[in-house]
Amino acid sequence: MRDEQLLALLTERPGEYISGEEISRRMAVSRTAIWKGINRLKEQGYEFESVTRKGYRLTRYPDRFDEVSLRMRMNEVTSWGQPLHLFPSVGSTQDIARALAEEGAPEGTLVIAEEQTSGRGRQGRRWHSPPGRGIWMSLIMRPVQPLQYTPQLTLLAAVAVCRALRSVSNLDIGIKWPNDLLIDGRKVCGILVESAAEDGYVRHAIAGIGIDVNLAAEDLPEELQTIATSLRMESGGEPLDRTLVAAAVVQELEAMYQLYSEQGFAAIAALWEALAFSIGQHLTVHTPQGVIHGTATGLGNNGELLLQQEDGRILPVYSGEIHL
Amino acid sequence: MRDEQLLALLTERPGEYISGEEISRRMAVSRTAIWKGINRLKEQGYEFESVTRKGYRLTRYPDRFDEVSLRMRMNEVTSWGQPLHLFPSVGSTQDIARALAEEGAPEGTLVIAEEQTSGRGRQGRRWHSPPGRGIWMSLIMRPVQPLQYTPQLTLLAAVAVCRALRSVSNLDIGIKWPNDLLIDGRKVCGILVESAAEDGYVRHAIAGIGIDVNLAAEDLPEELQTIATSLRMESGGEPLDRTLVAAAVVQELEAMYQLYSEQGFAAIAALWEALAFSIGQHLTVHTPQGVIHGTATGLGNNGELLLQQEDGRILPVYSGEIHL
Repeated sequence: MRDEQLLALLTERPGEYISGEEISRRMAVSRTAIWKGINRLKEQGYEFESVTRKGYRLTRYPDRFDEVSLRMRMNEVTSWGQPLHLFPSVGSTQDIARALAEEGAPEGTLVIAEEQTSGRGRQGRRWHSPPGRGIWMSLIMRPVQPLQYTPQLTLLAAVAVCRALRSVSNLDIGIKWPNDLLIDGRKVCGILVESAAEDGYVRHAIAGIGIDVNLAAEDLPEELQTIATSLRMESGGEPLDRTLVAAAVVQELEAMYQLYSEQGFAAIAALWEALAFSIGQHLTVHTPQGVIHGTATGLGNNGELLLQQEDGRILPVYSGEIHL
Repeated sequence: MRDEQLLALLTERPGEYISGEEISRRMAVSRTAIWKGINRLKEQGYEFESVTRKGYRLTRYPDRFDEVSLRMRMNEVTSWGQPLHLFPSVGSTQDIARALAEEGAPEGTLVIAEEQTSGRGRQGRRWHSPPGRGIWMSLIMRPVQPLQYTPQLTLLAAVAVCRALRSVSNLDIGIKWPNDLLIDGRKVCGILVESAAEDGYVRHAIAGIGIDVNLAAEDLPEELQTIATSLRMESGGEPLDRTLVAAAVVQELEAMYQLYSEQGFAAIAALWEALAFSIGQHLTVHTPQGVIHGTATGLGNNGELLLQQEDGRILPVYSGEIHL
């Protein structure tokens, strides 16, 4: 009996029990073999509830990525995610990815860490990245395009990660401009695209993605309690397999990048607008140039947010923070 | 007698002798005092020819910057150039400036080195930076503007440095798109603007500037003999004061940046076009997307070169190498 098959069965219906009888029938193995398989999975860090007559229910995924499984899963769904650099603990995956990019690491190179001790968010803010509960990763892209299109990659990353998380969780996740992902107003994922350019030429762009996957309320520091959440908290406490989530995210990033290369930014902008909360709403935006108010009407050609003023004028906003 | 005054007199008419009698009269000092002053300057690395009845002629500037004079001169002409970091020898001033910028160094921060052991040019090429003969420097800018305008800074830097070098040398120096400076087809200065961005927001842009000031033909490696030159070689062998040149360049950079902030890119583009060799010429451009041919008609709104095709279409070129 392959443990991967057993695990696939046990994760088929998250939160539900699966009976020993069903496993035995579908895998054509003895109850003793199942029991041994369950024990091997427990040694890897999985936890199960077992209840007489109901069967087994997966209650916890290992708090460490299994590097072999992660590589295998990535390879199954995407040509990105390799080379893959997995670390137990780092300062910031962005800094490691940038150093790799400067040394010539190819497009698709992925850095994942179990923990970041100085994870970075947008505009110099810290990103809380406790061990084993989230996905803290950075992906290197090398778009061959003029520098001025680079901000479009920020929107592209938001669309890709949002699509991936919606598909693995069935939660109603939306985008807050430019690239925060929210569930019911609470942040479940932050994205930061950092780029380096030489004259008009992009050297590399690195998408830093922080996803609160299995964090419990008690994993969140006081100041994040009311503004952050996790996929697990929003799924009634059921944990998700971080390996599957990470692979799904990289898969969607590659797919959206492909779409972007073939059909241009308009295709991405349409997907973004469909997933965004802020379109049609009256917003206050804090920009480096000052505070702007207006009604969001959509995206401009370069990914800027278009804000309609009271006098009807449309103002483009290139960077800033939205206050709804 | 202040040595600075003596030096000012001796550099007033480059290449010409100035008589002891004239110095004595204009500074109201004795011939002995002049002789002592000349000796003090020699100790600092200046060299003079002295010919009976003709007087003194400055033949060489010190091969080391005097840090105090450099700071004083900078302060006289520009509010940029501070903090100033002067190094005898570094790998690359760009790398040092980038590290300083990441740590929060302010706009105007300047890194100068007597020598670079791994100076970088555009597109990963090496930049020959021998000790004491050139100006190898990097300047930190922090433009508060959308990322897509960043390529304009490349053109701005070319205009500023070109204007400064023309004013200190009286040589006919022009710009080859986007930012090489040439005299009679030979390169006298290379400029590289590297930028780092977060989403749509520019963190910093660093102008790396390498100027062949006092290099002699024998300072150039074999492969550069026919394609590079120096201000000194083009001025009949007369050396220039690197301190004055460096200060003039930073002064013009600040002035052009100010003009850009107040009047926008159109003002810079007009100056650029007036100094550029390639406008009106039929060009071959090697771009990351492939080879393009056409007649250069000017600059577009973002600093891209506009190439008119045979069928009349105008093609924008964002980065690449021109072959005339």
